[in-house]
Amino acid sequence: MKIIAIDSSGLVASVAVIEDDILIGEYNVQYKKTHSQTLLPMLDELKKMIELDLSTVDAIALSKGPGSFTGLRIGSATAKGLGLALKIPLIEIPTLDGLACNLYGTDKLVCPLMDARRNQVYTGLYEFTKGREEGGTYRLAVLLSQRAVPVDEIIQKCNGTGRETILLGDGVPVFAERLKEELKVPYSFAPAHMNRQRAAAFAVLAFQYMKERRAVPAADHVPEYLRLPQAEREKIEN
Amino acid sequence: MKIIAIDSSGLVASVAVIEDDILIGEYNVQYKKTHSQTLLPMLDELKKMIELDLSTVDAIALSKGPGSFTGLRIGSATAKGLGLALKIPLIEIPTLDGLACNLYGTDKLVCPLMDARRNQVYTGLYEFTKGREEGGTYRLAVLLSQRAVPVDEIIQKCNGTGRETILLGDGVPVFAERLKEELKVPYSFAPAHMNRQRAAAFAVLAFQYMKERRAVPAADHVPEYLRLPQAEREKIEN
Repeated sequence: MKIIAIDSSGLVASVAVIEDDILIGEYNVQYKKTHSQTLLPMLDELKKMIELDLSTVDAIALSKGPGSFTGLRIGSATAKGLGLALKIPLIEIPTLDGLACNLYGTDKLVCPLMDARRNQVYTGLYEFTKGREEGGTYRLAVLLSQRAVPVDEIIQKCNGTGRETILLGDGVPVFAERLKEELKVPYSFAPAHMNRQRAAAFAVLAFQYMKERRAVPAADHVPEYLRLPQAEREKIEN
Repeated sequence: MKIIAIDSSGLVASVAVIEDDILIGEYNVQYKKTHSQTLLPMLDELKKMIELDLSTVDAIALSKGPGSFTGLRIGSATAKGLGLALKIPLIEIPTLDGLACNLYGTDKLVCPLMDARRNQVYTGLYEFTKGREEGGTYRLAVLLSQRAVPVDEIIQKCNGTGRETILLGDGVPVFAERLKEELKVPYSFAPAHMNRQRAAAFAVLAFQYMKERRAVPAADHVPEYLRLPQAEREKIEN
């Protein structure tokens, strides 16, 4: 089975192609360009480099949200376009679940933090649990599903677990001082090669979703923003 | 500090640019092309995408070996050329250490396996230990430094530790059946987004080496093959 995964939910633009256990190619960029300048050119470049025949692709995985409203729309439009043209389904991965998947194999709690502005974060709490079979692989378990909350709330949740936690995501540098002050459990921040969205990690989760028949028709996909866009919020407030 | 990292020690061609805690860009390909067709074009493409000014780069990190003899020579020539032209040092990362770094944050033992042909593997044993400081990051600790050994020997070493182990690398599919039969400790195989060389992981280790002043002049670098090349071995045997 072959999956193209894309992520443009945050500052990173990321594309990956995985066939079964092989990451055939990935291209990740975190640079001050808009996703409309990066995502499709990167996918096109990767497609040429690995001589990808699009007709052999079984599904398109993408981060379904939350994240940057514009970023998510660019990712959704790209994935829907590919899915409709190739007549293959989409696999919608919750953004925070995909982020947590970077830390595969850790025994610590995983707490991804995306800056959601106005002192809020998109976050969740995850751990890896092992399947029953001998030599089984670890699976991502959701302890607290993704949500938009004030940063203090997730810090208290972490403290409440009493467990060591690895934090990652673009919310970490934004709230680093507060995390250092207020976290009472042992913690660390994920290093550079693991601390942002990576489509290859979304793709690994997508294989599991495919086995569980959780793909959706491309026409049905809509991004999940978790909050109202700024324009709608201000309209309601005024 | 900004580092370009490259790896071409195995089947993967991989380039990454990291500035402090930010992975600005990475491009990884595992496809049936030679490294001479992939490595420099990928670096050139990435350089354009992130508008990289080469004069701002502080060092070139590379996998110093072991690995494919031709692959290592292509990586070494590329890194030396860049280092000499830009007048910056190289940071030589032992290939197996770089591979192990994919699994940052796990409490399990990490056992990278690269197929070295003739029933041998390039391998080592690693774990992550935490620095003393509060909120400290994990560091890679070398329990068994990289070496070329028969696959049975490393399986016995793993069994001797009594500890759960995560295995990764291109040696895993080659020796999967034997690993499943002979490993007596709990184990799992790393998933697709973590199971091969990744220059971004080498770069993270390279930052630590830079702090420890372990960079070398570009002119001094030579790859470390660990074994004689096939041609020399056959000459001695005949």
